[in-house]
Amino acid sequence: MQLLTDSAAMTLALEWAAKGLYTTSPNPRVGCVIVRDGVVIGAGHTQPAGQAHAEIQALRDAEARGKDVRGATAYVTLEPCNHFGRTPPCSDALVRAGLGRVVAAMVDPNPLVAGQGLARLAAAGIAVSSGLHEAEARELNIGFLSRMQRGLPWVRLKTAASLDGMTALHNGASQWITGPEARADGHAWRARACAILTGIGTVKADDPQLNVRAVETTRQPRRVIVDSRLEIDPAARVLAGAASWIVAAVPDPAKEAVLRAAGHEVILLPNESGKVDLPALMRELGRRDINELHVEAGAKLNGSMIREGCVDELLVYLAPTLLGEAQGMFALPALTSLDQQKRLRFHDIHPLGEDLRILARFTHTKE
Amino acid sequence: MQLLTDSAAMTLALEWAAKGLYTTSPNPRVGCVIVRDGVVIGAGHTQPAGQAHAEIQALRDAEARGKDVRGATAYVTLEPCNHFGRTPPCSDALVRAGLGRVVAAMVDPNPLVAGQGLARLAAAGIAVSSGLHEAEARELNIGFLSRMQRGLPWVRLKTAASLDGMTALHNGASQWITGPEARADGHAWRARACAILTGIGTVKADDPQLNVRAVETTRQPRRVIVDSRLEIDPAARVLAGAASWIVAAVPDPAKEAVLRAAGHEVILLPNESGKVDLPALMRELGRRDINELHVEAGAKLNGSMIREGCVDELLVYLAPTLLGEAQGMFALPALTSLDQQKRLRFHDIHPLGEDLRILARFTHTKE
Repeated sequence: MQLLTDSAAMTLALEWAAKGLYTTSPNPRVGCVIVRDGVVIGAGHTQPAGQAHAEIQALRDAEARGKDVRGATAYVTLEPCNHFGRTPPCSDALVRAGLGRVVAAMVDPNPLVAGQGLARLAAAGIAVSSGLHEAEARELNIGFLSRMQRGLPWVRLKTAASLDGMTALHNGASQWITGPEARADGHAWRARACAILTGIGTVKADDPQLNVRAVETTRQPRRVIVDSRLEIDPAARVLAGAASWIVAAVPDPAKEAVLRAAGHEVILLPNESGKVDLPALMRELGRRDINELHVEAGAKLNGSMIREGCVDELLVYLAPTLLGEAQGMFALPALTSLDQQKRLRFHDIHPLGEDLRILARFTHTKE
Repeated sequence: MQLLTDSAAMTLALEWAAKGLYTTSPNPRVGCVIVRDGVVIGAGHTQPAGQAHAEIQALRDAEARGKDVRGATAYVTLEPCNHFGRTPPCSDALVRAGLGRVVAAMVDPNPLVAGQGLARLAAAGIAVSSGLHEAEARELNIGFLSRMQRGLPWVRLKTAASLDGMTALHNGASQWITGPEARADGHAWRARACAILTGIGTVKADDPQLNVRAVETTRQPRRVIVDSRLEIDPAARVLAGAASWIVAAVPDPAKEAVLRAAGHEVILLPNESGKVDLPALMRELGRRDINELHVEAGAKLNGSMIREGCVDELLVYLAPTLLGEAQGMFALPALTSLDQQKRLRFHDIHPLGEDLRILARFTHTKE
């Protein structure tokens, strides 16, 4: 049997963490692997909020397998917590279990933890280190880190376009520009988000469900609808079956009452132009524990989100087709100089069926 | 020493063929490697038109190295010719040299050869086969094959655009959307083309040179300018230093005389709308031995070329930036149904510096 190196053990822990991709919201996805003499004796990942963290799952797994964890090494993708949240601190559990060494991929950016978890372990005589495969660990919890460090969700704007940058014909026809693989992949990105945001224009034009269907999940992201004048039809499919947040700029007590009676919340966030204040909305979503926000909207709201600096990355499905004169991806005003262009960098390029998935990050975003 | 397999030897022959990428026009790029007992004893590639073909070069190389080619195997990326062109038939030379076996990547599509080269070798008692690494060999001579099989050049349309599909601001500013790596790569594609085509709009707006500068080459592609009403300024930089072909739809004897006196040729090819007949121009370029045609034009001519079915592939440099309301890539009319979309397939995706190179082929094109 091949003995695990530190790097291989942390890679395994990251794979365990990824098992919580759709379910841990608003908690981070964390994986833990316990290794003794180069062999895994326990592993686990964060359960849905309020339930066990990864470290506890791994300890329980070792126990269930009859393994002795005393003196063993725990590899965790995020520093063990040292505070009472909805569950007791994991650092205490690791100390009590008698672990000999704890290797963390990264320090917890949560100001309630921030190095104290590792300090607690070290004080109990456990060897600690952090930073192994940190980049992958950060990527996995990019939304949680964003919320902890900026008070904002990580905002991912999804669009599907032709090679000439068009998303729909002028008559609205857009089904289907991309193929089934790209559409299923889009649902996987929805599934990992805490919330999905769209605009009233898209709701009126397409009446989308904006839920996760093409991949399996036990949890649906919260739907958030930007609807300045509260025009939404309470029978719209996006409101079906779950409490949604409808963000308006103009009060309308009667309409608000109808929506509230149906279980939805109306959030009033007007800006000076009588539209929804999008940057304020991003801060509000951060306060409401939204880690990753998935935006699927029309060119107009897309353009406003980008123009107001609310978008961190673009998730673009590019189809090998030309649509010619049609609807563009983002309604952005004409520039007068190339100095004004909004630069990004390509983060990941991936073929999906006949299409291409491009993940590009704005250079104004600190990761 | 590792003995060469058939596959490895043909891969070497393909590498030799690629050395002629910029120079063999209008001949195909061919490589030849002669192997005895698993070891290369001679290699060569097609020289500029009128000079030695790959097989002759490889035989000379073996001779210069004092190697005996009798009974050896020649790997050639294209069936040896069996006709007198500007040089005597290579098949005769291989027979005379006493080769024991000839492996070709593909049969020559030239109707003057078309299997006769291999037949001639077989008749002389040489073991022959073809089809090894044929796909790569076809790719290398995609333009030559197109001309032989369709009488048309392989038409590659190059454009550089932002992620939202824009090539320039409304004020014309476009330098530089893509980075230096993409621009140098663009010159490499120009260098392998037999001719570069542009339109009078681009000449008037940008006064480009449209020659190869960023990569080394001993040969400049022919410049072809689509200029329906012969508006070109004889001092335009695109006309400097080389005989160009100016394609017009409306005769203008005085202007034609000026251009001819400067060494250029004026080709009149009007269609019924008084514009240049682009499909007829493609046929004419095929007759004039243009294998690969590289198109760098504005949205209008790009759109016409695509609409009239004259383009085989798009070479798109995509920059990680958003330009908003600006100039699109191709002036194509609005569709009324997605059934009318022009589908392509992504053939190759390649990062270049901060940019992305996308090679996409129209599905209407037979390769």
